[in-house]
Order: sequence, then C-alpha cells, then structure tokens
Amino acid sequence: MPDSIPADSVGVVSPTTLHFDEPLRLDCGVTLSEYDLVYESYGTLNAESNNAVLICHALSGDHHAAGFHAEQDPKPGWWNNCIGPGKPIDTNKYYVVSSNNLGGCGGSTGPLSTNPATGTAFGPDFPIVTVRDWVESQARLANALGIDRWAAVMGGSLGGMQVLQWAVDYPKQIANAVIIAATPKLSTQNIAFNEVARQAIRCDPSFHEGHYRLHNVVPERGLMLARMLGHITYLSDDVLHAKFGRELRDGKFNFGYDVEFQIESYLRHQGQSFVQRFDANSYLLMTKALDYFDPAAQFDNDLTKTVSNCQANFLVISFTSDWRFSPEKSRELVRALLDSDKNVSYIDIESEHGHDSFLMEIPLYHNVLHSYFARSLQEQQY
Amino acid sequence: MPDSIPADSVGVVSPTTLHFDEPLRLDCGVTLSEYDLVYESYGTLNAESNNAVLICHALSGDHHAAGFHAEQDPKPGWWNNCIGPGKPIDTNKYYVVSSNNLGGCGGSTGPLSTNPATGTAFGPDFPIVTVRDWVESQARLANALGIDRWAAVMGGSLGGMQVLQWAVDYPKQIANAVIIAATPKLSTQNIAFNEVARQAIRCDPSFHEGHYRLHNVVPERGLMLARMLGHITYLSDDVLHAKFGRELRDGKFNFGYDVEFQIESYLRHQGQSFVQRFDANSYLLMTKALDYFDPAAQFDNDLTKTVSNCQANFLVISFTSDWRFSPEKSRELVRALLDSDKNVSYIDIESEHGHDSFLMEIPLYHNVLHSYFARSLQEQQY
Repeated sequence: MPDSIPADSVGVVSPTTLHFDEPLRLDCGVTLSEYDLVYESYGTLNAESNNAVLICHALSGDHHAAGFHAEQDPKPGWWNNCIGPGKPIDTNKYYVVSSNNLGGCGGSTGPLSTNPATGTAFGPDFPIVTVRDWVESQARLANALGIDRWAAVMGGSLGGMQVLQWAVDYPKQIANAVIIAATPKLSTQNIAFNEVARQAIRCDPSFHEGHYRLHNVVPERGLMLARMLGHITYLSDDVLHAKFGRELRDGKFNFGYDVEFQIESYLRHQGQSFVQRFDANSYLLMTKALDYFDPAAQFDNDLTKTVSNCQANFLVISFTSDWRFSPEKSRELVRALLDSDKNVSYIDIESEHGHDSFLMEIPLYHNVLHSYFARSLQEQQY
Repeated sequence: MPDSIPADSVGVVSPTTLHFDEPLRLDCGVTLSEYDLVYESYGTLNAESNNAVLICHALSGDHHAAGFHAEQDPKPGWWNNCIGPGKPIDTNKYYVVSSNNLGGCGGSTGPLSTNPATGTAFGPDFPIVTVRDWVESQARLANALGIDRWAAVMGGSLGGMQVLQWAVDYPKQIANAVIIAATPKLSTQNIAFNEVARQAIRCDPSFHEGHYRLHNVVPERGLMLARMLGHITYLSDDVLHAKFGRELRDGKFNFGYDVEFQIESYLRHQGQSFVQRFDANSYLLMTKALDYFDPAAQFDNDLTKTVSNCQANFLVISFTSDWRFSPEKSRELVRALLDSDKNVSYIDIESEHGHDSFLMEIPLYHNVLHSYFARSLQEQQY
C-alpha cells in the first residue's frame, strides 16, 4: 500500500449511485423498469460543461478507474496511470466520469441486484445487454450530470467498442472518440474463445443454471477456467515467454499435476483471484455483449456507411502484439473513417504486451494520449 | 460409408498387439514391468528390411493411420490420404508401421489397462510418460519386427517431436526424419493452453482424482472443454472466418445461451464427440508429454549440440498459418540442423488451415512428401 497518496493521484474517491426511473427498453426486447448506475468522477466540470470525458470499461473492469477508495487502499483504480493531475487524461483540465456497465457486478444494476418484480436477485434472469444498451444508459447518465456533449468518450477493448457505438448513436454529443485496442466486430476465433469460457462456467455443476447463489455456491471452477483462458489471450506469446519462459517452480519435473511451470502458477493465481471479485452471470453477459457487437450489421455490413454520420474526431490506437483484437481490426475501422472523410488519427504502438498494453504505462502510448487531449483542449478554446 | 473400398486404399486392416516382458524404465523413474503395444502395418517388409516407415501419432491420434477396419467402416484411418498404394507414403514400396503410444487409450498399455500389480485399471496411477519413453518403446517394437533401421520415421505435431527424439536417441537406426508442424519445445503460450485443458478436466467433479471409472462416470464436461479449446488452436483465425464467420444458426440473436453462432455449434459438436472416443487420463498424460518435450535441455539448451550426433536426413515441413507450432519453431530446428552440417530440406507450405494442415490433402504438401520419399528410395537403391 502507498505510504501516502501520490501527488499525481486524484486522491481518495468514492462512487456515486444514481437511480433512473425512466424505463429502459433493451435490445433484447426486455424493459428495465428502473435501474441504478454507479459512477466515479475526477476533476471538476467547468462552467461551459465542455470538459467532460467519459471512460468506458472493458470486460472485467468497473467504474473505479482512478484514485483510491481509502487512504490505506493498497490498489488504485484500473486506469490510474492514465487519469490524474498532469497525466494523459489531466484531471486539472478535464472532468472525468467512469461508470459501471449495466449487467456488471460493480454496483450498477445487474444479476446481483434485486429484481423489483420479484424482490429477489435477478441472477440468470437479468437480461442480456448490448453495447448499444450501455451507450443508451450512459447517455442518460450524461443527461443527469448536465453534460450535453462529451469532450471525449474513450476506452480500451470492450470499452473502445462502446466509444464507437457512442460516435454512431450520438454523433452530436461526442467531440472526440478515443478507441483503443478494439475492433468493429469480433472475429470467429474471438467468439470461439468466449464460447469456451461460457461453457466452462455453464458446465460447472455449481452453476445451477445461474441460480448458484440460491444454493450458496459459486461456479468457481468454471469462472476460474474462463479467466485463465482470457489471460492467455490478453498477453502475447512473446511477453509470456519473457515473463515465464519454461521456468519450473521446483527447478525440475515432478511428473504430476501440481504446478510445475511458473506459467501454470500464474494462470491459477489469476483464475482464483478473479473468482473473489467477479460474478459469473455478469461474466456471461459481458461475453455476449462482445459477441453481439457489430454496428455495421445495421448498415448493410458496410462499416463506411456505419460511421458516415459520425461527427467526432477519432483517435484510434492499436498495439503491435495484440492478437486478441489485432491492429488489422483497428485499421479496418480507420479505413472506413477515412473513406467517409472523418477526421481520424491512428497509431499502431510497438508493444510486446499484447492486448493488455492498453492498460499499461507505455511512454509513446501515453504521450500520444497526452498530446491528443492537449490539442483537443486548445482547439476547443480558440 | 464408401460403396466399396477405393483402389488407392490399403484396404481392410486390423491391429496387432505385441506383449513386451522386458521391463521399461520410464523417465519419471517408474518401471513398467510389462506392457502391450498395439500397431498396424501396411505394405510389405522387403528382404533387406530397409523399406520400413514408422508413423508417430499426435495428441489424440492412434495406430489406425490408414485403411478401414471393416468393409463397411464409414471412416478410414487418420492419415489415410497420405498412406496407401501410389500415395505419398506409397505402400507398394514401403512397409508402414503405426503404433499407439504408451499411455494412450487406443490399445497400448495406458490408464485403461489393468495394472498387473493390483489387478485393476491403472487409471490415474499410470505413470506420466515422455516423448523419450515413447521412442524407447518404439525402438523395442522395431526390434521385435526385425527392423534395424527405419527408412523413415515421420509424424506431425506431437508425432514430429517423436521423430526428432528418434533422430537424437537412435542416430543409426533412422535414415530419414520427417518432422511436420512440430517444434523443438513448447512455448509458454502452448503450455498455458495445455494447463487450461488439464484444469478443465481435473476440476470436473466427475474426475474423482482420475478414478472416475470406479464411480461409473467420466469427466465429460472437462474433456469436452479441453477439446473445444484444442480445436481453436488447431485452426487459424482465417479458416475459422472462412468456415463460420459470424454466421448465426437461427439467422438472428436469441439473447440466450443456446447455440447462436455456427462456430459455437461446431465447437460443441467437436467436444462432445471427442468424449465418446478418448480417455481423460490419457489426455492429461499426452499434454504433459508435450510440455516436457525439450531434447535440448540435456544438451545445455543448445539445439545445435542436441542434433550434432544425428545421422538421418531431415525433411522439415511447416505451414504458414500454424500458430500453435509456428513456422518460426520449425526454422529454429532447421537452423540448428544446418549449423551442425546435417542434410536438411525445409519447406513452409502456404495453407490457411492452421496446425490441422498436417492432416490435410494439400497438393504441394503431398507432392513434397511424394518426391522426398521417391528420392530416398532411389538413393537407397543406387
């Protein structure tokens, strides 16, 4: 834990919960009669309300993007290296909003919440939500916060997909779209990995068709497997090699099934700790939102047409070693944006860290974000 | 099923079981006091006994490489497209031997066999075997068959690793080493995928620490997951895209967890059918043999030194889209062979089919094998 909170931190923060009474009709046809959104904010909204930045989180993220939840909190938010005073997303200049997605398990209404219709937890009855549903709910959050137009909406991975959907669905309400390590739609291989993760969870006998909490159990094994598999796809083969190689925990083979290679130890640890903090029904929902995401499907599968009404400036960032959402996918989007005469900057950042690069403090990456935001602010002022 | 057995087939074949009484001390320190090896053979051993080809099988393969087990057998052996009269491995010229690996579930002694010490099935007590153990047992098989020197030892994937081990361990007993879609050792990512597969099996409550047969169950869910995951790594992203894309079974999203995308249907089918034909304890063993394989570990991690005593001619084949054992791994071996002045031919075959390419009838691939074998035979005759 930090001796004291660093000067470039947003400090101790606490989440806010907003209740929404206006029913939200979801893509799946189900209507949420009411729901909560939990969010954190860092920095101050200016008088013109034009310095607000929305952070969209990825599969296992939440609203706690920066700062600490207590003086002695050992761990800051998940994008703390990027958000704070003087950081790429400079909270001296920007008002940063980070909300937990509907269907998640961080506080916004999701499978762990009470279903007002039954008085018990939704569990597996929580409807499958889509990226578009999230954007719709975030638009209502913006409304509630008095933000007519975001200076930027940004996010990595599944977060980046929300950004693209924002730019398509609310062209006038987003000045800059910062899309990092994302894709305009999942590949067959991506869906395949998600399906194995889902089957791991759903085949766990403790899953009980999603009603595991009624049985006072959680499908730990399945969720652990899903996370282990996820981790392999978040990292590049090269970085796995550099970190773990073929190193053995005991320096020799034991000819058994306990941990032998260090990589096994790492994966088991990642899997086990995830089980402590994430809900299996939420994980299932999130993978479905990923699979379904394909904004071009409603524009004759034409990505250029899809983005033709966008008004935002775009910054698209990919990472050379990302094989989950490869740079080629980002370039597909960039080409569509160029073909429809949008203002787009693109950089493919050299990094060995695979998909996880978007969370890391890579100097060039953060410099690019820093410069982009500095320029945007300048353009806004003059 | 075929109306009649094709003319270029080896026809109806049946396996032979050989019992070995001489104890076999395994790498893990355990000694098998006796064991069976089951094998098939195609073609005829010539008077000089110098036309024998050994086929080594991969993770889920077995001894049934070619031909049919009955006139009405719907499916031939796993490498039927490559082995037969006039085929690349021409059974008019070669005597082809294909054996089931120890620890497998195809008939050679393994977890399903009776442990002579207890009178009950080995189950999880069957010792973990290594590629070196397999080669040792295959060397004894060669002895029993009166084959002093193989015209060729060949195999793909884990089969190719056995070939390399053969060339290292028995330099005088192998004229040609044909190593296809293999690697001199697994990468960290390879081990990571294997570990997820193992955990899937071992965490299945029906696994019972490997004693599932005593409980009259099998860890179906775990083995299914392992196979689904395996299949993703056997195919390239491109071929998955070409075969399944984002195609939906019902043409629309159902917002549920039944099969939606065709790729999900394919993976579930592959997983479920594998459970019918493969033993979970064998699967675990095989993945361990893969992880452990690293012949250079006993030569100061110097691959050039490792192959320096080899006397075989080498043919190394990789496939451009194989990301499980990438062409770069094959080239690592080729470089080591060149550095130690071995006679080596190498080709990287253009194929979109990923790792599975080694099983497919790709014209250039089969032509290369055909030419290589034709030349070898010529060199042998003159």
